[in-house]
Amino acid sequence: MTEPTKFTLTEDRIPTHWVNLMADLPGDPLPPLNPGTMEPAGPDDLTPIFPMALIGQEVSAEPEVEIPEPVREVYKLWRPTPLYRAHRLERALDTPARIYYKYEGVSPAGSHKPNSAVAQAYANKEAGIERLATETGAGQWGSALALACSLFGLECLVYMVGASYDQKPYRRAMMESWGASVIRSPSDTTDSGRAQAAHPTGSLGIAISEAVEVAAGDADTNYALGSVLNHVCLHQTVIGQEALAQMEMAGDEPDVVIGCVGGGSNFAGMTFPFIRRVLRGEARTRFVAAEPAACPTLTRGVYRYDFGDTVGLTPLMPMYTLGHDFVPPPVHAGGLRYHGDSPIVCALVKQGLVEARAYKQNETFEAALRFARTEAILPAPEPAHAIRAVIDEAEDARQAGEQRVILLNLCGHGHFDMSAYEAYIAGNLEDPEFSEADMEAALERLPEAPAIA
Amino acid sequence: MTEPTKFTLTEDRIPTHWVNLMADLPGDPLPPLNPGTMEPAGPDDLTPIFPMALIGQEVSAEPEVEIPEPVREVYKLWRPTPLYRAHRLERALDTPARIYYKYEGVSPAGSHKPNSAVAQAYANKEAGIERLATETGAGQWGSALALACSLFGLECLVYMVGASYDQKPYRRAMMESWGASVIRSPSDTTDSGRAQAAHPTGSLGIAISEAVEVAAGDADTNYALGSVLNHVCLHQTVIGQEALAQMEMAGDEPDVVIGCVGGGSNFAGMTFPFIRRVLRGEARTRFVAAEPAACPTLTRGVYRYDFGDTVGLTPLMPMYTLGHDFVPPPVHAGGLRYHGDSPIVCALVKQGLVEARAYKQNETFEAALRFARTEAILPAPEPAHAIRAVIDEAEDARQAGEQRVILLNLCGHGHFDMSAYEAYIAGNLEDPEFSEADMEAALERLPEAPAIA
Repeated sequence: MTEPTKFTLTEDRIPTHWVNLMADLPGDPLPPLNPGTMEPAGPDDLTPIFPMALIGQEVSAEPEVEIPEPVREVYKLWRPTPLYRAHRLERALDTPARIYYKYEGVSPAGSHKPNSAVAQAYANKEAGIERLATETGAGQWGSALALACSLFGLECLVYMVGASYDQKPYRRAMMESWGASVIRSPSDTTDSGRAQAAHPTGSLGIAISEAVEVAAGDADTNYALGSVLNHVCLHQTVIGQEALAQMEMAGDEPDVVIGCVGGGSNFAGMTFPFIRRVLRGEARTRFVAAEPAACPTLTRGVYRYDFGDTVGLTPLMPMYTLGHDFVPPPVHAGGLRYHGDSPIVCALVKQGLVEARAYKQNETFEAALRFARTEAILPAPEPAHAIRAVIDEAEDARQAGEQRVILLNLCGHGHFDMSAYEAYIAGNLEDPEFSEADMEAALERLPEAPAIA
Repeated sequence: MTEPTKFTLTEDRIPTHWVNLMADLPGDPLPPLNPGTMEPAGPDDLTPIFPMALIGQEVSAEPEVEIPEPVREVYKLWRPTPLYRAHRLERALDTPARIYYKYEGVSPAGSHKPNSAVAQAYANKEAGIERLATETGAGQWGSALALACSLFGLECLVYMVGASYDQKPYRRAMMESWGASVIRSPSDTTDSGRAQAAHPTGSLGIAISEAVEVAAGDADTNYALGSVLNHVCLHQTVIGQEALAQMEMAGDEPDVVIGCVGGGSNFAGMTFPFIRRVLRGEARTRFVAAEPAACPTLTRGVYRYDFGDTVGLTPLMPMYTLGHDFVPPPVHAGGLRYHGDSPIVCALVKQGLVEARAYKQNETFEAALRFARTEAILPAPEPAHAIRAVIDEAEDARQAGEQRVILLNLCGHGHFDMSAYEAYIAGNLEDPEFSEADMEAALERLPEAPAIA
């Protein structure tokens, strides 16, 4: 094995700009709607909870947005992240495919999430905000925002989904170590929480409602979301830009780029710089979005306007949705248990630029262990879905006798998910799937809104 | 802040040789002794449990030992590790000191331990061995060996100290994810374990006895130790060699190099390449070894021949010891709960080349949180002791108005130690200290052996 394993960039190669794919998307983007007026939501709908700098990024039509220098300085604590050639996995699969993975788990919080948390904390600090409120499911986003607030001197209030709060005390301890306050959701600290007391295990949608309510009601507190929104996807594009440079170092061009999708942020971060090349006619690349069969938004959802939260406090967003009050089964990939998805990612799926696939829990953990025992890294349950898709592509390439080049976004490690591995090894994992009855029930509760063509 | 933060080496800069400090130490080294004959232990004492390649490294007089290419190939999965300038910690401390840290927590097992685990697994695989038996306390070493065995196709059997087995199910799940078998120690699978049934929480010394017994009694099974021995320290010197190159990139020369000491392997790995320069008259550098007040081997132990394990199956080694049957209080820095230390590190302390300091539990966690909230990384409890020493040096430099250059070995992250952080934040950590009565009791049970001058 004389070919390189790891493609390393020095800190001066951290991107100077984020890539805004909105500028290259064909047609006019579908706007978010004010649920009261059904008119496009404007800055006034957002200023109670977001600073103007982020609202500007949310609606920007510029192809690139400059990264503030203090944000780049923090990125230096873990970026650029490494890109690996998966020599050992390739040999184990006996495939002619060449597999590369970008590893975001080297961030101190263990995932790609700090890429946006740091940008959001900085923008809010600059706007004079004192505290950020947010929600977290698996804990990756809450940890990232706790870390970012600690570095910029902001208070951080995290509503943690009840089931995760109970199952993952160590994620909570991590957030508290970085100085955050963590509240179990649904809580009695908000109207939204009190209204959902009948669902004691909580959901991401409920926790979002609680955090938005707190932010809307306190001038010194803003809200921060870890995925879905355009500006969050924007911040994550440092991943794909670095990967482009690293694939060039490797002298290889990906045939297919693969990531998992919950709200869409890691997928967007990796793929948008590559998709821009496709939209500009500079490359031909396939893109695969992997999601859980228990929460199959892109593969089974309807393309409609829906709320981002359970209670209905957010603007209506155009997206594939399973219904804003759908509570997914408690699969271990907590970061993928969200009823909707980034409107941009949904539009790309709708247009056929991105192919979505859904996987069951056991087959993703089987893939995760295969990865861990060859490439050493223990993946988080979320990117394990993407690894499943990578292995399928590599086996397909073997059968086709193709030297396919596969690029994976390995968006986080599984150090806080070992109970899931334990359950898999013991044969105790279930394979819940979304049912037609779930979908029919959800459709009845979708809000009134204009249909999407 | 325009000065660089991170000093990055590409994979071609992974060292090609390990540094063997034995060759540069003044005088003849004190040999380990066969406890039956009190004669120097020879290869025959070691071949039942170690392959000849490692025995050769253990007694080598060569100043450098070549790293086998397959070992360097595995190192590429995480090495070279980054070196950071701690700009944010410096500002928080308002110190003129310049603080650097080498971060070994980027390895898939989360610490420096795989540097030796990989080398040991490779040597045993080459020797035709099928299985490795070992012990683990906090779980860092067991994880590292499980990983290494997985990569080289060896079986792995880990005796895990009972108290850790109960408190850290996730470390166990990590080892099992890499395919290892994990047994709670003391167990009924060995005579050593059955003899210690009265100590159900176990100790590192007992677990070592169990693993050595299994290896000695099975021709296809060897034993692997994660610290203390010369060849383990040797393997870890990739850390210090990389740090030398990175400090050169930074254009700075350390005045003091700091690490924590349990058995001594991370401390040796960082410092030996720097100590060699001092021994050769090429540099003037201070070295500080940080250890827990609850298990203060270097600061309070006696310099004597003692066993490496509790039951007395190992050769006698010349070292500072608290007595081979001393069971340290259950402080969270499980990796520092060992009655002895590397004979080389002990000799360096004895000769005054290394200064040892002991810290209590709460002051180390206070330092760890200060580090986490400025430099983002959550340290393991073990290197938190070294961070405490770094902060003391930096504050001393401020009072002296000195631009002191401090280099820290941050040997692992704390992702599997969050219950310790939780306890610290809740104010529930105790500060156990070693007592004179402990020492007096231990002295009575030291084995007969020649005195050390």
